Amino acid sequence: MKSFKIALAQFSPHVGNIDANTQKMIEQANLAKKDNADLIIFPELSTLGYPADDLVLRPSLTKRTQQAFDQLAQVKDIVMVFGFVNQTEDGQRFNSAAVMKDGQVLGIYNKQTLPNYAVFDEKRYFNEGHQHLVFEYLGHKFGVLICEDVWSLNVVQQLAQLNVDTVVVLNSSPYEVGKPQHRIETMAALVKQLNINLVYCNQVGGHDDLVFDGTSFVLNKSGEVALQAASFQENLSIAEYDATNLAFSKTSITPTLDTMAEIYQSLVMATRDYVQRSGFPGVILGLSGGIDSALTLAIAVDAIGADKVQAVMMPYTYTAQISVEDAAEQAKTLGVTFGIAEINPIVNGFLQTLYPFFGDAPVDATEENLQARSRGTLLMALSNKFGNLVLSTGNKSEVAVGYCTLYGDMVGGFSVLKDVYKTIVFELAKYRNSIADKPVIPERVITRPPSAELRPDQVDQDSLPPYEVLDAILYSYIEEDMSQDDIIEKGFEEEVVKRVIRLVDVNEYKRRQGAIGPRISSRAFSRERRYPIVNGWKAGI
Amino acid sequence: MKSFKIALAQFSPHVGNIDANTQKMIEQANLAKKDNADLIIFPELSTLGYPADDLVLRPSLTKRTQQAFDQLAQVKDIVMVFGFVNQTEDGQRFNSAAVMKDGQVLGIYNKQTLPNYAVFDEKRYFNEGHQHLVFEYLGHKFGVLICEDVWSLNVVQQLAQLNVDTVVVLNSSPYEVGKPQHRIETMAALVKQLNINLVYCNQVGGHDDLVFDGTSFVLNKSGEVALQAASFQENLSIAEYDATNLAFSKTSITPTLDTMAEIYQSLVMATRDYVQRSGFPGVILGLSGGIDSALTLAIAVDAIGADKVQAVMMPYTYTAQISVEDAAEQAKTLGVTFGIAEINPIVNGFLQTLYPFFGDAPVDATEENLQARSRGTLLMALSNKFGNLVLSTGNKSEVAVGYCTLYGDMVGGFSVLKDVYKTIVFELAKYRNSIADKPVIPERVITRPPSAELRPDQVDQDSLPPYEVLDAILYSYIEEDMSQDDIIEKGFEEEVVKRVIRLVDVNEYKRRQGAIGPRISSRAFSRERRYPIVNGWKAGI
Repeated sequence: MKSFKIALAQFSPHVGNIDANTQKMIEQANLAKKDNADLIIFPELSTLGYPADDLVLRPSLTKRTQQAFDQLAQVKDIVMVFGFVNQTEDGQRFNSAAVMKDGQVLGIYNKQTLPNYAVFDEKRYFNEGHQHLVFEYLGHKFGVLICEDVWSLNVVQQLAQLNVDTVVVLNSSPYEVGKPQHRIETMAALVKQLNINLVYCNQVGGHDDLVFDGTSFVLNKSGEVALQAASFQENLSIAEYDATNLAFSKTSITPTLDTMAEIYQSLVMATRDYVQRSGFPGVILGLSGGIDSALTLAIAVDAIGADKVQAVMMPYTYTAQISVEDAAEQAKTLGVTFGIAEINPIVNGFLQTLYPFFGDAPVDATEENLQARSRGTLLMALSNKFGNLVLSTGNKSEVAVGYCTLYGDMVGGFSVLKDVYKTIVFELAKYRNSIADKPVIPERVITRPPSAELRPDQVDQDSLPPYEVLDAILYSYIEEDMSQDDIIEKGFEEEVVKRVIRLVDVNEYKRRQGAIGPRISSRAFSRERRYPIVNGWKAGI
Repeated sequence: MKSFKIALAQFSPHVGNIDANTQKMIEQANLAKKDNADLIIFPELSTLGYPADDLVLRPSLTKRTQQAFDQLAQVKDIVMVFGFVNQTEDGQRFNSAAVMKDGQVLGIYNKQTLPNYAVFDEKRYFNEGHQHLVFEYLGHKFGVLICEDVWSLNVVQQLAQLNVDTVVVLNSSPYEVGKPQHRIETMAALVKQLNINLVYCNQVGGHDDLVFDGTSFVLNKSGEVALQAASFQENLSIAEYDATNLAFSKTSITPTLDTMAEIYQSLVMATRDYVQRSGFPGVILGLSGGIDSALTLAIAVDAIGADKVQAVMMPYTYTAQISVEDAAEQAKTLGVTFGIAEINPIVNGFLQTLYPFFGDAPVDATEENLQARSRGTLLMALSNKFGNLVLSTGNKSEVAVGYCTLYGDMVGGFSVLKDVYKTIVFELAKYRNSIADKPVIPERVITRPPSAELRPDQVDQDSLPPYEVLDAILYSYIEEDMSQDDIIEKGFEEEVVKRVIRLVDVNEYKRRQGAIGPRISSRAFSRERRYPIVNGWKAGI
């Protein structure tokens, strides 16, 4: 057995853009060759990008994939293992990996374990493979697996029994909090048990609502980490197998991030990728003086730069002066374009037109919604006129209970904090300030009691339980699928639990019309939690 | 073999409301017994309703289903075949049918063929069954199948080989144009081939975006229709098996509807079910003098009655006088509440606030969108104040190419014409007038060139190709999955095809935030056509 070098191309494909992805793969292969790599591993479905949803069903995918093969065939002197959609002549379709060298396809592997739960719908698109692929190169025996395969002990065991030295795994494994470390720990236990080395190459990038962290790694049979790539960025890492020691040498190991850093970076990357790949020149958002918009602004600036970010404060009668001050201060600190647009003339226009209909009907949430919708329409008008994407600023706690206005503060193309509970919003704000020379989010924004400022002296806690309580109940109901009875059993107040669950249930219609936003939890709304709008499921057991 | 009577309970479950559905099933069984029925067949997943999406994954479903069994066990002297979620002790979950008599479960059948394409996601929820169920009653041999099973020739053939006389099929088969007749014709060919009788009981009702037509039927081995239930309504039909003739006697046969009647009734039922099951007292919509809102109004009135429908005309500077006249005339004819709300003060308020931002920037679509969003916000304010649901009035052609304003004319909880191409909108309007004593949609609304009236003398054909051309291109691209090159090949103008396809592709973000609406085609947006928002798929081959 010889020593060899294997490259992990942790890259961010543009979903659907097979041409661009293929070119990027060729560039990566050429770079790897400069570093004398003998093999290069790409992520799952690297030519098409993941998840491509129903693009997988477009009839011309086969032709386009063939073109990618023709282009990749021009790369010489390196073994490439890459992912593609394999449409066979008998009408089957597989999620596959090809092993190619000097234009020759040495083998094709069809993924055996198709995830069809949570955010995954692979059985909609693919047939299951039933055969392992092992190839020998430089006297070393490699096995190939794809993502979910490696979480199926049966499948990996069968492969290990074929006397494989190293398993290369092509992945598009979505991020969620703690997942990068969890993957490595699980795989370390697995390789020790099965006595194999593991080369794990993961996709990176924000793809609509899914975030891919990358965090590719190489493990020796001992469970030792020989290489760990940085999360949330493209990189080309090279692992070196030392035939003398019969192990990968310890090379560059980027430690896993702390939780808040990890979440923060995931949101920054997701926002950058969405904005840039949608082709927007910049973003615009409503800055209220509250913590959600303040954090969103900081993330936007970190994602695409202050010069591409516009913030607008839209005060009304109930807006506190300190809100305007704090918003202006933050905009100044961050160096973004800042403007103030009073909504009083607009709200008055609405009230005037509505007077013949409303008459003396008592003031209620309608008038609050008018404020929010006037702001939403203003942001959209500025977006339409100057081309910036509107970022929505609501958090998961709000979206869960519908404490937000459809077509009002919910407007926007990307909802940065959609999967972030309010209690985590506070933590992220503190985290972001902790890594800055001076606070990028004014301290008062973090310490003031949260308020929607839609009526005099309003605070969120007039309508909602304290956020620590609210978030704990929401987590039990949404992430943990607990029943109302079980949550009450845990010690929460019965009336509070019932009200929170009812709010979650009746607000599905709002969430359904909300913007997408990056998934960071193990149960994000929409793609992962699919509930009927009209449904008669009663809380209780 | 004895003669017997079998009841088909074509009912509309309330998704998720197992208690209510079970009570309804018991009532149906008691009614059937009054007519001396020996058996009663319910639709697929009758206790839970279909599709229940991720409610299927709630842990307490098992307990709730057990309660349903306990209640159904009280029904005596009739064999019931009903659908339920079967969670087995080894952790598997099946889409199942139970045969129950006098509280005893005589057999359980687990669906073998799980659809996981188009609108279906059954592999997300269920394991596949592998065994047939045959039961004998009154000397007659019955086999049980569930929906998709009967479209798998293998599965039906295997069952037929067990010397079954009659196959009962529990269905939740969604409607699409022509599907009721297509089902009967396909099944007629099948029963002749396999020499079996078929009792086909289908769910009915509008369940979010899915419409179930019912149209249950009974076929003799000869392929002859012995019974056909009316579409789009609940009913309990009883078929009589005559042991002398060894066939079901010909009883009540409701002929399949003509295409426009079928579509129209599907939309009426879907709208009624959505409004009533969401608990709204009525609906409100913007009446523009155009054909989409006119047709939506007629459907709303047919669905829930004129007394529960409010129409609002919201004119602006560019609104033609005849639009106001036509809107008022239709509202009067139909007897709905009608009001006029000028949006000029509102649009002026927006323009005033935006002036410091816009300066002398040229007028563009921004100002048009302000009109649409002022109207949307007005409708939402009236909805918030008085509780009526906003109906959205856009059609499939518009939604496809984004010829509509997000948070403007797209606001609403239910989008009645979302899956109806504009050319069909015209047909439906004519159809509705043809069955009325006097036109419920003013003739001029049908004959005028369509216009959004967002700038002076605007007509839709300034921005879009003629609707016959547009709809033909859209149908090829969306329903038929044809490539750009192939559509051009068909003889359409290259530039037009390219522009239309580009518009469809870039407007996914708008559709994603639109209201749900009833699916009537074989490729409805959202549940059935799942595209990434950010994607680099290029038109062409």
